[in-house]
Amino acid sequence: MGMVGGGRNAFIGAVHRIAANMDGLIELCCGAFSSDPANSIESGKALFLPENRIYKTYEDMIREEKKLPPEQRMDFVSIVTPNHMHFGPAMLALENGFHVMLDKPMTFTLDEAKQLAKKVKETGLVFGLTHTYSGYPMVKQARQMVKEGAFGKIRKIYVEYPQGWLSGATEKTGNKQASWRTDPKRSGKAGAMGDIGTHAAHLAEYISGLKIKQICADLNIFVEGRPLDDDGNVLLRFDNGATGVLTASQVCAGEENALAIRVYGEKGGIEWHQQEPNTLIVKWLNQPAQILRTGVGYTTPLSSFATHNTRTPGGHPEGYLEAFANIYRNFALTVSAKMEGKEPAPEWLDFPTVEEGVRGMAFIDNVVASSASKEKWTEFTV
Amino acid sequence: MGMVGGGRNAFIGAVHRIAANMDGLIELCCGAFSSDPANSIESGKALFLPENRIYKTYEDMIREEKKLPPEQRMDFVSIVTPNHMHFGPAMLALENGFHVMLDKPMTFTLDEAKQLAKKVKETGLVFGLTHTYSGYPMVKQARQMVKEGAFGKIRKIYVEYPQGWLSGATEKTGNKQASWRTDPKRSGKAGAMGDIGTHAAHLAEYISGLKIKQICADLNIFVEGRPLDDDGNVLLRFDNGATGVLTASQVCAGEENALAIRVYGEKGGIEWHQQEPNTLIVKWLNQPAQILRTGVGYTTPLSSFATHNTRTPGGHPEGYLEAFANIYRNFALTVSAKMEGKEPAPEWLDFPTVEEGVRGMAFIDNVVASSASKEKWTEFTV
Amino acid sequence: MGMVGGGRNAFIGAVHRIAANMDGLIELCCGAFSSDPANSIESGKALFLPENRIYKTYEDMIREEKKLPPEQRMDFVSIVTPNHMHFGPAMLALENGFHVMLDKPMTFTLDEAKQLAKKVKETGLVFGLTHTYSGYPMVKQARQMVKEGAFGKIRKIYVEYPQGWLSGATEKTGNKQASWRTDPKRSGKAGAMGDIGTHAAHLAEYISGLKIKQICADLNIFVEGRPLDDDGNVLLRFDNGATGVLTASQVCAGEENALAIRVYGEKGGIEWHQQEPNTLIVKWLNQPAQILRTGVGYTTPLSSFATHNTRTPGGHPEGYLEAFANIYRNFALTVSAKMEGKEPAPEWLDFPTVEEGVRGMAFIDNVVASSASKEKWTEFTV
Amino acid sequence: MGMVGGGRNAFIGAVHRIAANMDGLIELCCGAFSSDPANSIESGKALFLPENRIYKTYEDMIREEKKLPPEQRMDFVSIVTPNHMHFGPAMLALENGFHVMLDKPMTFTLDEAKQLAKKVKETGLVFGLTHTYSGYPMVKQARQMVKEGAFGKIRKIYVEYPQGWLSGATEKTGNKQASWRTDPKRSGKAGAMGDIGTHAAHLAEYISGLKIKQICADLNIFVEGRPLDDDGNVLLRFDNGATGVLTASQVCAGEENALAIRVYGEKGGIEWHQQEPNTLIVKWLNQPAQILRTGVGYTTPLSSFATHNTRTPGGHPEGYLEAFANIYRNFALTVSAKMEGKEPAPEWLDFPTVEEGVRGMAFIDNVVASSASKEKWTEFTV
Repeated sequence: MGMVGGGRNAFIGAVHRIAANMDGLIELCCGAFSSDPANSIESGKALFLPENRIYKTYEDMIREEKKLPPEQRMDFVSIVTPNHMHFGPAMLALENGFHVMLDKPMTFTLDEAKQLAKKVKETGLVFGLTHTYSGYPMVKQARQMVKEGAFGKIRKIYVEYPQGWLSGATEKTGNKQASWRTDPKRSGKAGAMGDIGTHAAHLAEYISGLKIKQICADLNIFVEGRPLDDDGNVLLRFDNGATGVLTASQVCAGEENALAIRVYGEKGGIEWHQQEPNTLIVKWLNQPAQILRTGVGYTTPLSSFATHNTRTPGGHPEGYLEAFANIYRNFALTVSAKMEGKEPAPEWLDFPTVEEGVRGMAFIDNVVASSASKEKWTEFTV
Repeated sequence: MGMVGGGRNAFIGAVHRIAANMDGLIELCCGAFSSDPANSIESGKALFLPENRIYKTYEDMIREEKKLPPEQRMDFVSIVTPNHMHFGPAMLALENGFHVMLDKPMTFTLDEAKQLAKKVKETGLVFGLTHTYSGYPMVKQARQMVKEGAFGKIRKIYVEYPQGWLSGATEKTGNKQASWRTDPKRSGKAGAMGDIGTHAAHLAEYISGLKIKQICADLNIFVEGRPLDDDGNVLLRFDNGATGVLTASQVCAGEENALAIRVYGEKGGIEWHQQEPNTLIVKWLNQPAQILRTGVGYTTPLSSFATHNTRTPGGHPEGYLEAFANIYRNFALTVSAKMEGKEPAPEWLDFPTVEEGVRGMAFIDNVVASSASKEKWTEFTV
Repeated sequence: MGMVGGGRNAFIGAVHRIAANMDGLIELCCGAFSSDPANSIESGKALFLPENRIYKTYEDMIREEKKLPPEQRMDFVSIVTPNHMHFGPAMLALENGFHVMLDKPMTFTLDEAKQLAKKVKETGLVFGLTHTYSGYPMVKQARQMVKEGAFGKIRKIYVEYPQGWLSGATEKTGNKQASWRTDPKRSGKAGAMGDIGTHAAHLAEYISGLKIKQICADLNIFVEGRPLDDDGNVLLRFDNGATGVLTASQVCAGEENALAIRVYGEKGGIEWHQQEPNTLIVKWLNQPAQILRTGVGYTTPLSSFATHNTRTPGGHPEGYLEAFANIYRNFALTVSAKMEGKEPAPEWLDFPTVEEGVRGMAFIDNVVASSASKEKWTEFTV
Repeated sequence: MGMVGGGRNAFIGAVHRIAANMDGLIELCCGAFSSDPANSIESGKALFLPENRIYKTYEDMIREEKKLPPEQRMDFVSIVTPNHMHFGPAMLALENGFHVMLDKPMTFTLDEAKQLAKKVKETGLVFGLTHTYSGYPMVKQARQMVKEGAFGKIRKIYVEYPQGWLSGATEKTGNKQASWRTDPKRSGKAGAMGDIGTHAAHLAEYISGLKIKQICADLNIFVEGRPLDDDGNVLLRFDNGATGVLTASQVCAGEENALAIRVYGEKGGIEWHQQEPNTLIVKWLNQPAQILRTGVGYTTPLSSFATHNTRTPGGHPEGYLEAFANIYRNFALTVSAKMEGKEPAPEWLDFPTVEEGVRGMAFIDNVVASSASKEKWTEFTV
C-alpha cells in the first residue's frame, strides 16, 4: 500500500494505517504524505519507510512505483487527503493500473465521482471507499436480516448523526480538521451533510437495501460566518415507498459521534448506535425485543457477513478501528483474489465502492439543491 | 369531580381516576360514564358511587349537579370521551360554572377549541388538559434549565413518538382504542399526528419555551384501507430560529410509547426518554454529561417545579400515573386557591390549559394542510 | 383502613396512603398518626378525617373502632411506625380481630415476629408486609418464569442493594429517617441489613422460590460512631445447592436505591434493576437475550401474576408507588374475599405475609450472628 | 517479537498478534507456534514468516535467535501457550537476555511466578503480562481519579466477572479453549478463578491502588464431573480497611464477558463495564453523576494515562483489541527506551508486570486455600 496524504497530525491518516495494518494482510510500503515535501519525508521516516519510497508528490509516487517490479511495488493506493484532493491521485492511480482505497466523500464534485466510476468500470480495478460505519459486524447483521425478509417490507427509517464539535467557531482556533471541513474550497458544496450526512445516507441505504428516491432538505448554518451548513434535516422517501428522516448536525453541543439508525418493517425492526456498536436491538411486533451481540454464537447463528467481520468471540468489544479494518481487509482479500485470478467470496466483496461513492456525491448535490428550493419534494438524481 | 366518559374497559378513564385520586385532594362524586345509560350505571356502581349521582347523560349530570348545594356538588368536570365528544360537555360545563379537565387533543376541530378558549377567558374558570408527558418531574427540570439559560440559545429540537401498536389493521380486530382513533368521524382530521403528534409538539414547546413557527409535514398511511395517517415526519422551525424534527408513528413495529426529546443549545442540551422518565441526561459542550434523577437532593437542588411534582425521594421510580396525577394535583390546587380567593403558586399553575389545547388543534390543522401542500414551508397559524 | 404512625413529614406514611388509595378499594377512615397526640390530630385533619376518628394512641383507635358497627369501622390496621413500634399495635389489632398491614422489617426482634405469626395462624386474619419490591410486575414475571422451569435448575443469585445516603453522619444532621434507622433502640439489631438487606433477601427468595440455607456474613460500619452496620456483604447458599451473594450498603456514595438482582439457571436467567423496573432482561444460553416489558402484550403473554399487577398498557412506566399499591390491592382483595367467604384468586394471595416477615427477622439475626462469628458458614435458622 | 504458541485456531495467539501489530512498533519476526512442529511451520507460513525463522520448539527459537546479530534478532518473546507452558519459555527467554511478554495467569504455580520475578529483578529485563482490562483508557482514568483522591478514602469495591460459556460440559464437545481451562494439569489449581478471577482481582487492585489483605472464598463446581471450580464468590478486605466482593463465574448462562467494577469512596465512586468500555460513570455524593467518555476533550481534561492509551477522538469506540494493544505499546515503548538508555515515561511503564503476576498466582493459591478452609477470614499471603 502506498499512501497519499496522512502526514503527521492528520487524524484520519493514522486511522487508515492502523486499519490497513490490523490483519497482517497489508503493508505500508511507500507514501506521499503531504503537499509539503519536507513534511512528507519526515512523516515517512517516522513510519520507518526507506527514504527511496518516500515521495514528494503523489505523481512521483505513482510514476516511480510503476517502474518497480510487480512483486516490489505497491499493490494499491490509499488516499486520505481532504476532499478536494481526492480526484487527482485517484484518477492517476487508476490510469496507471493501481487499485484505489479512498476516504469519503468520494470527490469534490459529483462529476469527478462519475469519472472515477467510469474509469473503474473500464479498468476492472478494485476501488474501496471508507464508509466505516457499514464495516461494523452488527450493521452487517442488520442488513442481512432485512435482506432475508425478517421484518417484512420496510416502512420507516430514522437515521441521525449528531455531533457537537463545531458548536463554536472551532475553525478559527487553528483546528485543522475544522478548518478544511468548513471551507467550501476544500470540503465541497456541503459541510455537515458532506462530512457526516453522507455516512448517514450510506448507512440507511446499506442496511435497508433501499435507495433514496425523493428528498426534502433543510440545511442550516448556526455558527455565524460559517460558509457551509453545520446542521440539517432531510425528509426521505425510498424506492419501495418507505419514508424516513435523516439528520446530521455538528452543533449538537455535547454529542460525540452519536450516529444511530432505526429501521422498521411490517413485522419488526432494528436499532443500532455507533457508540455501542456491538449491540443490535431487534424489535418484533408482539414478541419481546432481542439483544444481538457481536461475536456471540447462537443456535441460529449470526449472518456470515457479521461473523466474517469479527475478530474475537462475544464479549470482547470491537470498535471503530476494527470496523475500519474490515473495509481494508475485504478490499485486500478482493484485490488478492483478483491478482490470483480467483472469485472473491461474497463476504469479501462487501465493502463500499464507486456506486456508493457516486451516490454519496449525488446526495450532497441533491440535499444542497433541495434545501435551496421552495419545492417540497425533489427527485434524488444521480 | 364528575366524570364524563370512562366507563368500564375504557383505558384512559381508569387512568384519569387513579390520577385524580392519587393525592387525596380529589374525590370522584358523580359521573355520566357512557353514552349507553345501562353501561353508565353499571360503571358508576362499580366505582362505589351512590345511584343518584350516576347520570345517564352529561347534560343530566351538569344540570342536576348544579342544583345541589355548593358544598355537595362536584367542583369540576373531567371529560375522557373520544375526541368528537369533547366539545359538548366541556362547553356545557363551562357555561354552567364548572371548571373543566379535558383529555387531549382538546376538541374535534380547531374552531371548537377556540370557542372553549374564549369561554374560559370569559368565565375565569380553570381549565386543564392532560398532556401527561409535561407532568414528569424531569421534563419540568429540563424546561427550567432551558428557561434559566443553562444551554444558551436553543438551536435544535428532535422530538419523536414512535409506537408500534397500529402496525397491523388493529382497528379491524375489535380493539376499541384502535377503532375510534383511526376513524375520522371520532378522531378528527389526523390519526397518529392527532393522537401522539400533539403530545410531541406540546413537549417540544413546553421544554424549549419556543413556539413552532413554520412546518413542512409528510403524513403517511402504511396500513391499507386506513383513512387517517398512521405515521408522519415534520420539519420544524421555531420562533427563535431553532430548527427541529418531529416524528410520530404508530407503525414502528415493536415500539411501545417511545416518546423522546433532545434539545440542544449553544452550550449544551438535554435528552429525555418517556420510558425511563426519571433520568434526564444533561449534555455540556466540553464538559462531561450529567445524569439528573428525579427526587435526588443535590447541592444545587433540582428546580422547585421538579420537586413540587415528585412524591418520593430519589431512587423510587415515579411513573406515568404520577405524571398524570401531577396535572390533576396542580389543577386541583389551583381550583382550591381560586375558590378560596388565593393566588395559586407558580408551580400549581404549571399544567396545560386552553392555550396549549388550541395550539394542539392548530398543530393538527397545520400538519394536515402542510402534508397536502406542495409548498415546502408553511406558516404555523392558529 | 386505620393507620398507626405516618404523621406529617413521615416519608413512608405518605407512601402507604397513596398506595392504599390508588385503586379505589381502600379508604383511610381513621388513624393514630403519632406518639405526640397533637401531631396525630393535626395530621389527621390534614388528611380530611373527621375529628372523632383521629385517635391519640393506637390503643384508643383499636378499642374505639371495635365498638363501631362493622360497616362503619375500619377493616384493617396499617402500621407504619419505626421498627420498635411494630409489634405492639400489630398484636393488639390481631387480638381484636383486625387484619394487619405492616411495614417491614416485621418487628424489633425475631421472637416478636414469631408471636405475630402464631397469632395470625390462630386467628385466620389477613396479614400483609410491605416488601414493596416484590410488588413490581416484572419481578412477578421473573418469579413465574423461574417457577415454570424456563431456566432449569437455579445455580447463582446475585442480589445487591447499594444506597449512598448514609455516606456521612446524616443522623447527626437532624434527618429523622437517618436518626431512627441508625439507632439500635428503634431499628433493632441491624442497620443497613435490617433496613434494606431484608428487602434484598426477600427478593432473592421470592424470585428464585428458594430458601437461604447457609450464610457467611461480613457487616461493617464505615461512618465513625455509628452503632449499627451501614454496609455488609453476605455469601449465600440456597436449599437447592445454588450459591449467591447479597450486598447491602448505605455508604455507596452517589447511589439511590440501586437494588438489582440477577438469577442464573442452567439454561438462562434474569436481570432486573429497581430503578428501571419495567424492563426484565431475560438471558438465554446460546440464544439472544430478550427484553420483557411491563404491560406489553406478546404472543406468548406475560404471566397472569405480572398482568394482574399492571394498571396501564405497555409503554406507560409504572413505578414504586404502583408496586406498593399492588401489595395493598392484593391484600384488600384477599380481605374482601375472606369477608365475603370466597376463595381469593392465586394472584390476590401473592403478597408478603408472616412467613416472609419471620424469615426477614431471622435474616437479621442470622447475619448479625454470622458476622460476629469466626466460623465461615452458619446455618440459616428461623 | 518472537511468539511461543498461538498456532492456527488458537484464539489468544491471534489477539496477541493483532495487538502487537496495531501501532507499527512491533514486528512478528519469528515463532515456535505449536508443540506440534508441523503445525508450527504451517502457522508460521500463514503468517508470512520466512521458513528459517519458524522454529519447531521454543528452545530452538531462543537459541537460534540469540545467535543472530542484535539488529536482526527478535527483541522479545511473547508467550501465549496454556498456563502450564508459561514458565519454561519465559525463564529460558530471560536467561538468554530476551524481554518477555506473557499471557496471564503468569504461571502454573505461585513458586514459578516468584522464580520469574526474581529473574526479572536480577536481569533488569522488561516483563509484561496481558491483564488486558487494565489497558482500557477509562480504567486508567478511574485509577487516576482514585489516586488523586477525587473520592476520598475508598470504602467498597464490587468486582464481578460473569461468563456463561461453561454452563454445559463444553470441554467434552471438542472445544479446545474449554478443554485446557478445565484441566488441572494445564490450567493449574483453579478454573474460573484462575482464568477470570485473576483479571477481576487485578482490576480491583489496579483501579483502587489498594491491596487485598484478607479473603473469604467460596468456590463451586456446577457442571458435574468438572475437576476445577467454574464459579466462585469471594469476600474481600483491603489494606486500607475497604471491603469488597469479587465474583467470577463461567456458568452464568447468557453472559459473555460481563466484567464490571464499582468502587466507592467517601465522596463518590466509579462504575465501569467491560462490554461498554468507553463509558465511565462517575458518581458523586450530592452531585449528579457524570458520564466520562474515552477520547473526549473536556475543559478539565482526562488523565494523561487515559489519553496516552487512546488512538482516536471521542465518539470512535475503542475496544478490546486496542486495550490489548495498549499493553504491547507501553511494553514496546519501555523496551525501546531501555535499549536506547532512556528513562521511560510514567505512562509507558503503566502495564502489568511481575508484581501483578505474582499477586495473581497468589490470588489463585489463596482463594483455593480459603475455599477449602472452615475459617472465615484468611490472610492474603504472597
